[in-house]
Amino acid sequence: MPLPEKALIARVRRLAKTSGAPGAQGLASAISSGIGDDCAVLRLPSSKNAGDDEILVTTDFSLEGIHFRRVWHSPEVVGHRCLTRGLSDVAAMGGTPVAAFLSLALPRTLAQVWIERFAKSLIGLAKRHGVVLAGGDTAESPDGILADIIVVGTVPKGRAILRSGARPGDRIFVSGELGCGVAALVEKMRGRKVRESDYLRHFYPEARLELGRALREQRLASAMIDMSDGLSTDLGHLCEESGVGAEIKADSIPRARVGRPAREVALDLALHGGDDYELLFTVRPGKHVPEKIAGVTVTEIGRITRSRKLGLRDATGFIRKLAPRGWEHFR
Amino acid sequence: MPLPEKALIARVRRLAKTSGAPGAQGLASAISSGIGDDCAVLRLPSSKNAGDDEILVTTDFSLEGIHFRRVWHSPEVVGHRCLTRGLSDVAAMGGTPVAAFLSLALPRTLAQVWIERFAKSLIGLAKRHGVVLAGGDTAESPDGILADIIVVGTVPKGRAILRSGARPGDRIFVSGELGCGVAALVEKMRGRKVRESDYLRHFYPEARLELGRALREQRLASAMIDMSDGLSTDLGHLCEESGVGAEIKADSIPRARVGRPAREVALDLALHGGDDYELLFTVRPGKHVPEKIAGVTVTEIGRITRSRKLGLRDATGFIRKLAPRGWEHFR
Repeated sequence: MPLPEKALIARVRRLAKTSGAPGAQGLASAISSGIGDDCAVLRLPSSKNAGDDEILVTTDFSLEGIHFRRVWHSPEVVGHRCLTRGLSDVAAMGGTPVAAFLSLALPRTLAQVWIERFAKSLIGLAKRHGVVLAGGDTAESPDGILADIIVVGTVPKGRAILRSGARPGDRIFVSGELGCGVAALVEKMRGRKVRESDYLRHFYPEARLELGRALREQRLASAMIDMSDGLSTDLGHLCEESGVGAEIKADSIPRARVGRPAREVALDLALHGGDDYELLFTVRPGKHVPEKIAGVTVTEIGRITRSRKLGLRDATGFIRKLAPRGWEHFR
Repeated sequence: MPLPEKALIARVRRLAKTSGAPGAQGLASAISSGIGDDCAVLRLPSSKNAGDDEILVTTDFSLEGIHFRRVWHSPEVVGHRCLTRGLSDVAAMGGTPVAAFLSLALPRTLAQVWIERFAKSLIGLAKRHGVVLAGGDTAESPDGILADIIVVGTVPKGRAILRSGARPGDRIFVSGELGCGVAALVEKMRGRKVRESDYLRHFYPEARLELGRALREQRLASAMIDMSDGLSTDLGHLCEESGVGAEIKADSIPRARVGRPAREVALDLALHGGDDYELLFTVRPGKHVPEKIAGVTVTEIGRITRSRKLGLRDATGFIRKLAPRGWEHFR
């Protein structure tokens, strides 16, 4: 292992130990031994309800050149997005994140200040969500910055909201607005100036943890997924796991307003662009769904169908096939 | 995401579902929802003893060009070593591995057969240890094969064997023989033929899980670490975490016999070479330690000291400073 490892571990330890942030209280009880041993030892907080919690585990890569570019994304942005990818997966199960693990491979030439800024951002976000950075691995990278974030969470036994729960007739909802994530990349690729503040959902997306938990507690969602790959792709995943199809209405899809002056993104970006980390969920017919849940606007965009196809209905009523494309399409 | 993702997930699902291997019984209860959802949902087996188990989590990279080379290591070897890195960390805590997660980034040009062979080897090893491959992430790699293995295990509450438990006067033991891991690399670098069967501990190392558990159950080990980075480096880690030093005897160190005809590796390889995945542990003075534990030979190599230095005593009684070097030294 090269030098950065020791420095990084020492630094991460210091950063992870400083408290004072909301949610930092009680974290010590979740982890009894962490960074510096062979494994982290987690003592998960047990729920007050009867029955044991189940454990959620998710892993997500953040690879330079694939998920981010150093010339486009500051270390703070890379750190924030890295952890958000994992938190968002826990949100999509209706769970509560507890601990994170970071595997980080760094090129020998990387400046220490990059690591500092990356780690500070990631740990700051972790603390805001009451998540302890409990361990990980460091290595020398053969090429570029390679991060893998592991998030461990809890959910009451049998209550996780799966992708497989959708049934024909269920209504389909999305949270927030879609398309900002990829719109920033499209502008970057066109060589235009992209201010972080004009594309916040791209640079500093927030995992919809409160919304996910509220949907689980209120037993509203029959199935759920986070839109990291884009609406068309992730709706496809949900339908595949549920053994159903879907029909969505083009003019119902909430499109993000981005840039300066702010303008609505193109429909294709909202349909196929990823990286928004909004939630897509289904609700049994007849259940009341408020306009906002946990402070987040939710919008009905279509219905689950028995036929295992994905369709997009335009304003004239014409239905065309919705092919899952994902944001790679825009490269 | 490129094509390999879907094929890999489908393949891994099929491989993970086929049962018949010892230990495969009862695995279904450990994981209630896995590959294909946002998170894996783990329902950990609860121990029969009073009190809850604690959860162990470890992550380890296996990066092409750093941890393996495709021209030197077959896909089977890469898959086996990848999981062993994680299992060995659980062994070093005296724990029982339960589930594994694999984050895998692959170059677009990689042949499907490589993935098949890699996955089959990794999943076969997992099954032999009763470990379920419960999820992970796949991505396109910017360069080379990048794997990150996450292993989740359990250990009875408060019983994990930490690195920090060594006290002055404790005796130091190692399992098995040391130096085979790096000896194979040294031979490869010299351009010599290296048969897998002559360097088994390099190509197919086995995590010392039974030994680790036995040491915990018999309350023999006061501190423990696995030697993935090499004796000198890992003894240094253990001493640092325990706030102590150590003195080891050069002629006590069990050196691996490798090659054809078999010969003992040089002392330096046994001292500084990593990748052996043997265990290093300490025992309070006065406790009886059998020659073999759980079928594995254990050898006393020195003592923990109050002074926070690492010393190596040669056959004439002369003590020189033992600098942690790790296997990178041999490149």
